[in-house]
Amino acid sequence: MPSSDEAQVKTSPPLAEREVRNWDAEEDVIVVGFGAAGACAAIAAGEAGASVRVIERGWRGGGASAESTAQLYLGGGTPLQKACGFEDDPDEMHKYLVASCGPGADEAKIRVYSDRSVDHYHWLTGHGLYFEPSFVPYEVSTHPGPGQGLSFTGSERAHPYRDIAKPAPRGHTVLKDGVMSGEFMMQNLMQGAADAGAVIQADTDAERLVVDGEGEVVGVVARVRGERQLLRARRGVVITTGGFAHNEEMLRRYAPALTGHPAPIGPPTGDDGSGIRMGMGAGGAAIRMDAGCITLGFAYGHRDNIRGILVNAQGQRYVNEDVYQTNHGQIALMEQKGQVYLIVDDEIFKPPQDQSGELVPQEFEIAAVAETPEALEAELGMPPHSLTHTLATYNEFAAKGEDPYFHKEALWLQPLQNPPLAAIDLRVGHTYYALFTLGGLHTRPGGEVMDVEGEAVPGLYAAGRTASGIPAQGYNSGLSLGDGTFSGRMAGDSAAARSR
Amino acid sequence: MPSSDEAQVKTSPPLAEREVRNWDAEEDVIVVGFGAAGACAAIAAGEAGASVRVIERGWRGGGASAESTAQLYLGGGTPLQKACGFEDDPDEMHKYLVASCGPGADEAKIRVYSDRSVDHYHWLTGHGLYFEPSFVPYEVSTHPGPGQGLSFTGSERAHPYRDIAKPAPRGHTVLKDGVMSGEFMMQNLMQGAADAGAVIQADTDAERLVVDGEGEVVGVVARVRGERQLLRARRGVVITTGGFAHNEEMLRRYAPALTGHPAPIGPPTGDDGSGIRMGMGAGGAAIRMDAGCITLGFAYGHRDNIRGILVNAQGQRYVNEDVYQTNHGQIALMEQKGQVYLIVDDEIFKPPQDQSGELVPQEFEIAAVAETPEALEAELGMPPHSLTHTLATYNEFAAKGEDPYFHKEALWLQPLQNPPLAAIDLRVGHTYYALFTLGGLHTRPGGEVMDVEGEAVPGLYAAGRTASGIPAQGYNSGLSLGDGTFSGRMAGDSAAARSR
Repeated sequence: MPSSDEAQVKTSPPLAEREVRNWDAEEDVIVVGFGAAGACAAIAAGEAGASVRVIERGWRGGGASAESTAQLYLGGGTPLQKACGFEDDPDEMHKYLVASCGPGADEAKIRVYSDRSVDHYHWLTGHGLYFEPSFVPYEVSTHPGPGQGLSFTGSERAHPYRDIAKPAPRGHTVLKDGVMSGEFMMQNLMQGAADAGAVIQADTDAERLVVDGEGEVVGVVARVRGERQLLRARRGVVITTGGFAHNEEMLRRYAPALTGHPAPIGPPTGDDGSGIRMGMGAGGAAIRMDAGCITLGFAYGHRDNIRGILVNAQGQRYVNEDVYQTNHGQIALMEQKGQVYLIVDDEIFKPPQDQSGELVPQEFEIAAVAETPEALEAELGMPPHSLTHTLATYNEFAAKGEDPYFHKEALWLQPLQNPPLAAIDLRVGHTYYALFTLGGLHTRPGGEVMDVEGEAVPGLYAAGRTASGIPAQGYNSGLSLGDGTFSGRMAGDSAAARSR
Repeated sequence: MPSSDEAQVKTSPPLAEREVRNWDAEEDVIVVGFGAAGACAAIAAGEAGASVRVIERGWRGGGASAESTAQLYLGGGTPLQKACGFEDDPDEMHKYLVASCGPGADEAKIRVYSDRSVDHYHWLTGHGLYFEPSFVPYEVSTHPGPGQGLSFTGSERAHPYRDIAKPAPRGHTVLKDGVMSGEFMMQNLMQGAADAGAVIQADTDAERLVVDGEGEVVGVVARVRGERQLLRARRGVVITTGGFAHNEEMLRRYAPALTGHPAPIGPPTGDDGSGIRMGMGAGGAAIRMDAGCITLGFAYGHRDNIRGILVNAQGQRYVNEDVYQTNHGQIALMEQKGQVYLIVDDEIFKPPQDQSGELVPQEFEIAAVAETPEALEAELGMPPHSLTHTLATYNEFAAKGEDPYFHKEALWLQPLQNPPLAAIDLRVGHTYYALFTLGGLHTRPGGEVMDVEGEAVPGLYAAGRTASGIPAQGYNSGLSLGDGTFSGRMAGDSAAARSR
């Protein structure tokens, strides 16, 4: 009786070392994957004196990081924060991250990350990354334009977070010739790995781990243009192959709520969960496999949209519109069944544009336009007195600069009273819900992969989205690169320092 | 750097068979755990001609099933359904279960279960279970009183399910002297196991599985009063030790949203996830580990409460009140942050009582009482015009027998207009959210445990809440016993039929 979800997920039970006749190569540390986490693991291990080999499926590496907007979530008082006139503190950063990355945030990882964030800033700039000392006002954007290095990339200023921790902008964007560039970031980090002495082996697929009789991970089986290679790791293997947003079968098994409409972020040749499965095959436990970063960017390039109101299928508001786009994706998809609209009036609505004033190609579907709330409500098929009441109440208090329902910041409060009114269609299937997965191998802050009983799997490390990291169940932009680079460093350090 | 969640979860990497000098006992099939799933696995394997040994941690078995209300979700046209005058059909049952057990319900398991439900009814009654041919009207309760065998135990008649599949009552309750009795059910099933020839070994803790050099599961390491026993399984090991609702550490790792206030169901000596961890240690994949059955029984013993309205912290309705208590728990906790109230008026509210008219010990906290909607809204600290508008709108349409917002059945629609009004406090921490876990080992419909790549782990079977089963992400009462008894049968059959 075949199960419906039994279709093959190609994966990787480990090879027993006793079946290895001779190794094709041997290093202290083998890093699998050459995105941000892999590059940083290779740099750290190499600089610690270990011999390092990086194997990468693609022709040169970069991964999802090279396609990113190069934002890193850093804080605690970095030079960039100071240059832009902001105070920050590791404790405030810690409090914010615990509140926004839960439920069940990994407090130990967040503690280390917050305490060492300034150090990590210096480490990154020491490896060629550059942060322009210019701040994007919160009112303008969360995405820096040309020549801007710092911005708010989370819900720090929004209710309830503003009362939990002192807000500070922590989105540090890597610029190249004034423009944000994941490509430039990865060029530097990949160069750093080479400079640290790592052998970079591209076009190489990791197929399986090799374990000895005691369950210790001692190498990797790779495939290079059809040929099998056996690569021995004297100290450890660091897996940094990303998440599983591009593996529909794994999504169905572990995270069914993320299947269907959300659009995976990252190159389709990656993020198939191969590293997570290899790690599980060697005894690693995977946790929080249901968690995802789900982004609903209705204010991207069109910040005034925050002055509109988000409503569900019953015409009810359900959130303060000024929380960050990752909160919006999570809440809209998981709590409102993806059935939401943004209501705007003629004064608020403008065609989307970026910070330079350029029109942004992303366009929104308009679900309905009407001269009155009653007509809009009817056109959207909402129940009688629903949206009309929501608008009347919102307008009454917005005129006084208040939002007693959801505590949107006064800055964004403006009655919707200039017809026509319009409903921008933010329902799943009608706009872009961007997705990547957050679940993965259970690791210690040092990158050691843990088994089901919480013991380290000897010789096995994971970093970046292959692991369940700082953004355990909730997300702010820049956390995956911040956590990925930092956890890569930690794992590279740990593997290099390990003696057999 | 220790991780915050690194505290020990005692668990069980497998023992290599080469370390076994001699076995203390040997059977065709070893069943771990003697609740409903374990008993049915033992019956099935024994009746198929296999020699069977059941090992049970407690002094006699029964597990959470013996403490249950003995409801089994069965249908498709069972003799009990027919005796009570109801038509049902495997296809309608299948459609309802797919809709209510998702997202991502296991359609293959549901297909087999729906098609074989009448057969399973006969199998159960053939093993001593008795279903009284008397129906509890939907309007009265979902929990049968004395002498009643059949009731609705899901949301079959509620929107949107009533439009997806033709409703039928499918809660089959085992009665003993007219009273529902999990104890009686388990006495019969345990006796059935003994009658089928199974050796029942109580006071025996399963500690680890034993695997051979090929990864095949060949036995169990058990501990009996401090002494280690090695038990060989010639054909297979069936794990039926329940879920992990009583293991806080596992909940924190895998299902952080279920930690905290919800109250675990089942004896505190069980459901610690030991079987899931043993299975994972032997290469089994655990899926849907975030899923739980969360019950908010605000209408239990007080069916008229459905005539009230459920509102969130913003005084908004968020669901049709006539969905089943397991939907209510899931929605209130996961989508409304557990911050909900039931609003009733003086005509609706009555002290809770059971079907015999007895007062039920469960009492509700009253959050506020007031003569007017405005005063109730203020007393609850809700925003201005929130609850007042909700009540006015609800009353307007309820008077016409309509619920354009959430489509509650007309039967339950009644304006709330007889002061005083009261808010029953259903917030987490103020009432009882009952919990058990639904995630577990990934199995085929036949009970074979699958590894990370979807291949069977040879010799390993799981059933009941040790596996991710029919209630994959959503729940109706009776599904866990229904799925547990059926999946136990399937696993026992499969293990007995396996040849090495």
